[in-house]
Amino acid sequence: MINADKKRTQILEAATRRFAHFGLAKTTMSEIAQDLSFSKALLYYYFPDKNTLYAAVLEHVINQSFEEIEEALPSFNGCHETIMFVLDRRIAFITKYYNLLEHSISAVQQTPNEMASVMADSKVKEKAIISKILQRGVDTGELYVEHMEETAEIMLFALAGMRFSILKDLNGVLFPTKEEFDRILSLQKKMATIFLRGLEVRSASDPQR
Amino acid sequence: MINADKKRTQILEAATRRFAHFGLAKTTMSEIAQDLSFSKALLYYYFPDKNTLYAAVLEHVINQSFEEIEEALPSFNGCHETIMFVLDRRIAFITKYYNLLEHSISAVQQTPNEMASVMADSKVKEKAIISKILQRGVDTGELYVEHMEETAEIMLFALAGMRFSILKDLNGVLFPTKEEFDRILSLQKKMATIFLRGLEVRSASDPQR
Repeated sequence: MINADKKRTQILEAATRRFAHFGLAKTTMSEIAQDLSFSKALLYYYFPDKNTLYAAVLEHVINQSFEEIEEALPSFNGCHETIMFVLDRRIAFITKYYNLLEHSISAVQQTPNEMASVMADSKVKEKAIISKILQRGVDTGELYVEHMEETAEIMLFALAGMRFSILKDLNGVLFPTKEEFDRILSLQKKMATIFLRGLEVRSASDPQR
Repeated sequence: MINADKKRTQILEAATRRFAHFGLAKTTMSEIAQDLSFSKALLYYYFPDKNTLYAAVLEHVINQSFEEIEEALPSFNGCHETIMFVLDRRIAFITKYYNLLEHSISAVQQTPNEMASVMADSKVKEKAIISKILQRGVDTGELYVEHMEETAEIMLFALAGMRFSILKDLNGVLFPTKEEFDRILSLQKKMATIFLRGLEVRSASDPQR
């Protein structure tokens, strides 16, 4: 069983490298098997088709990224600093795994069901992290948030707006440039700064305004 | 010349009704000519092809909408009230002219050049309106805005994020539901409220924070 898990992890890691570099369409199961000197039969034993493997890879890298962020959270002081860190990590993650994520980022391509559920799951986790950070701000008396779930969602939607508006090509045909990613991050940080300031408590007697 | 302008306006209005109802693909120049009892030759004299006419229609309705908003602006007190009005009008406009706008809203379809320039122009005007409203807030001492252009842009991008995130189908294949438009408007208003609060001056001695 330990051996089986190890093999599964090896496959995920090899597949991550292939998919992240070449994308879904330009990667074959044979190439991944060759990278590992595994038989194709062994590969198919763990992952019955390419979409299943792709979804597992997506889940794998997304979970890794969330774990890294979650682990780092306690070391920050204040909501602003924490959110800036999260934004830095998010854009670094998207930049690194753009080829892998393009299927999910793209508004055009039909997302296979396996990936859709991974992405839906990732959105839930992302909202949970933002809620957690805002809740900590509420607990320390820094922020006032009336509807936590909705406020976290609005913040995430607003941040996504920077990406959608800057990226000219949502078809995922062209890889966004370094300048585009930098501009998205810069605008996201400014947006988040204004947004958090809009949630700040101004005086003890009048938390909302 | 007056007669010529009148004919042009008649064509624009008939074409607006057709395009707004049936969209670009499902409207023919013959139908528009028939609606007006004009010859096709006369129609083509004013608009050499369907894309040119479509772009003129788009420009026509967008300009009308901006004029209505601009005229109403002086009657509002304070930025918050003004922005809420602008958001109401924007969503009402998009709801009314969705079929007409889908080519521009859609991330998928290739936008013909004629329309792209109309949309680019409309974005400039939209930013100018938001800047004007924020500037009035700065002038009355209500707001503090360091970089006006960029702040207006961030606000518009964040508002667009609500639309992109709520609309599941960016292909423009399905007309968004009334519920989706209502939800977009509700989230946009909450976003704008938090955003404006984040720009508010808190004390005379410490405008920025």
